[in-house]
Amino acid sequence: MYMTHLECPKCSAKHTPHKLTQLCPECGAPLLVRYDLAKVKANFSKEDLIKRKPDLWRYRELLPLVDETNKISLGEGMTPLLALSKLGRQLNIELYLKDEGIIPGGTFKARGAAVGVSRAKELGVTSLAMPTNGNAGAAWAIYAAKADIDAYIVMPVDAPAITRNECAIAGAKLFLVKGLISDAGKIVGRAVAKLGCMDASTLKEPYRIEGKKTMGLEIAEQLAWEVPDVILYPTGGGVGLIGIYKAFLELRQIGWTGNKLPRLVAVQAAGCAPIVKAWEEKKAASEFWDNAATVAFGITVPKALGDFLVLDAIYQTNGCAVAVTDEEILNDQAELASVEGTFVCPEGAANYTAAKKLCASGWIKPNEKVVMLNTGAGLKYPDTVRVHVPVLQPDEDIPL
Amino acid sequence: MYMTHLECPKCSAKHTPHKLTQLCPECGAPLLVRYDLAKVKANFSKEDLIKRKPDLWRYRELLPLVDETNKISLGEGMTPLLALSKLGRQLNIELYLKDEGIIPGGTFKARGAAVGVSRAKELGVTSLAMPTNGNAGAAWAIYAAKADIDAYIVMPVDAPAITRNECAIAGAKLFLVKGLISDAGKIVGRAVAKLGCMDASTLKEPYRIEGKKTMGLEIAEQLAWEVPDVILYPTGGGVGLIGIYKAFLELRQIGWTGNKLPRLVAVQAAGCAPIVKAWEEKKAASEFWDNAATVAFGITVPKALGDFLVLDAIYQTNGCAVAVTDEEILNDQAELASVEGTFVCPEGAANYTAAKKLCASGWIKPNEKVVMLNTGAGLKYPDTVRVHVPVLQPDEDIPL
Repeated sequence: MYMTHLECPKCSAKHTPHKLTQLCPECGAPLLVRYDLAKVKANFSKEDLIKRKPDLWRYRELLPLVDETNKISLGEGMTPLLALSKLGRQLNIELYLKDEGIIPGGTFKARGAAVGVSRAKELGVTSLAMPTNGNAGAAWAIYAAKADIDAYIVMPVDAPAITRNECAIAGAKLFLVKGLISDAGKIVGRAVAKLGCMDASTLKEPYRIEGKKTMGLEIAEQLAWEVPDVILYPTGGGVGLIGIYKAFLELRQIGWTGNKLPRLVAVQAAGCAPIVKAWEEKKAASEFWDNAATVAFGITVPKALGDFLVLDAIYQTNGCAVAVTDEEILNDQAELASVEGTFVCPEGAANYTAAKKLCASGWIKPNEKVVMLNTGAGLKYPDTVRVHVPVLQPDEDIPL
Repeated sequence: MYMTHLECPKCSAKHTPHKLTQLCPECGAPLLVRYDLAKVKANFSKEDLIKRKPDLWRYRELLPLVDETNKISLGEGMTPLLALSKLGRQLNIELYLKDEGIIPGGTFKARGAAVGVSRAKELGVTSLAMPTNGNAGAAWAIYAAKADIDAYIVMPVDAPAITRNECAIAGAKLFLVKGLISDAGKIVGRAVAKLGCMDASTLKEPYRIEGKKTMGLEIAEQLAWEVPDVILYPTGGGVGLIGIYKAFLELRQIGWTGNKLPRLVAVQAAGCAPIVKAWEEKKAASEFWDNAATVAFGITVPKALGDFLVLDAIYQTNGCAVAVTDEEILNDQAELASVEGTFVCPEGAANYTAAKKLCASGWIKPNEKVVMLNTGAGLKYPDTVRVHVPVLQPDEDIPL
């Protein structure tokens, strides 16, 4: 175990990792996990990975669990990195899809939940609460069930219906709110104060990022440690982008990759684009986005707690931020499925729209290696697909 | 490439694999792919697997593709084998779940489609047609899209709605029928005769089994080549069970496992249990099951073309066949999710009911190593979950 401390990226205060700490007690910012990377470099080699299982725990030297027996796993990680050769050819780039639909619960949220719940269990947590746009709550609910931790989940009534079912069948204490995730967050805040349970809200505990970080580690390993030129990420709370950035910084520090970093692109829906607006105005933080609405429900986050970390990752990597419309998203979702066979979620499809725009503008250059994160399986969002199917009687023929 | 020929398990006729052959031209039975297993044994070792990607193509020496460049892959295979330690302890057995929900499209159908479509492409197929209870059609639709093959899919109006969306968004030519999969099969039969396209119906082409076979290969590899005592499989068409049996026979022949075979258990719903009835009557084939109906829609197959192969696999391995009720299935689906965090499909849950019955009867003995196949993600079947969720106003508190 190489974890040394928790660090505040805002006020630089250091805190012990050996008790549950939520936000920085000194300034209220999200905390980051730090490791003794020199020691990791000395003791961990790429060859160590060869015989390890294809799940995210293969990178245990860069993960915060002290005792492996506290691991709560449903087989998450090492999702496919698919070459989308037909669409890549059209754009004259080397295009990949990191398909996070192929993971327990069908979304990338499994990573944060697996590491977050495992570490919560290790720290003796017996109950947790969180607001969610659906998928994170579902993921934490199933891992909490496996860990025998009580989970209080609050989600907007408009969140995808299937995520309710997941929470309910996993035995979580589930509540809907007539409002947005920000309203759910306030309810959770009051419940945490009353119940004394862990607050598992996005970035209000430091371990979820560590799980999400493994997306970056896997991308690097799957590309044989060659850093891609661009990574596009559909950005709501932005934890994945923060985590991927942290992964590439850590890989650089342990000497597994060169100096190069991928240019990170935050993709948002035009109906909720606070990060894009802040980036365009070259600001360090975003403002609350009023009347947020998009078909890509998972990225309907009007103001992310970690916005400053997302923007910093973009600035530091010479990345950018792009907004796309719901109509573009739905068209590109269908194009991805019908051309490449990948039925991605609307959030994932937004990346492809953004990639096309950035190729057209010249920001992505010919032959660059570009990775798009599909954050979830399209099958969790049945309402985004328009289907008109002929119905036949048993004695009828297919009309030719 | 070690494939030598296609063989009829009924009349023993041999056929060339180098052109598209559907059923045995001599007797109409499904065909099996045969390999030069002595040569495989000489040239393929367990150590070869260590550096290969964690997908089903790692077993290429036991797969029918002649040219790797014809491979159509969405990253399928090497699904997790999860130890269900809490439920296993209750039953006093070593209980595992092979979770086929974590695969493109969320069901085990991806395996048959990946290998079947890849081989179809290799043989020059440009269009295919198939009847389906939903998931197989969805899987073949996405792989056909990737392969630029036209897919005609016919499914019952009662098939899970999400599978329609998958077919539609992948660009398949989709039709619903007011009837069962057997009615869809007749429509497909007429269309195949008219269109001259490939008939991708269950077991009417020999390559789908080869894809399903990889479930058995993976189980063996994941258990470090120790053959489990029992494998439970939710049985509709039964291709997976036939494939798993074939896998263990081949592994035995290439010397990777000892003489032991797993006892194979066909699990069916009480509302559609033709294999169970045939097994109880010690018959070699099943009879058409009238008025078939169960919540486990994927196994609503009143008469499987490969029933004689399923029954043979059960008899040869000293296995058995078990029927379970819909109520038991739904209760056990909830138990699996709330205790082990695994949200499985009703078909997958049926295995757990069957395992409990077989432990109670003594057929499964204490400490035996038992593997249950979960054939798909529970999130594809939202209607099987009963949810009653309180709705809060933003200023309301969680009731404690």
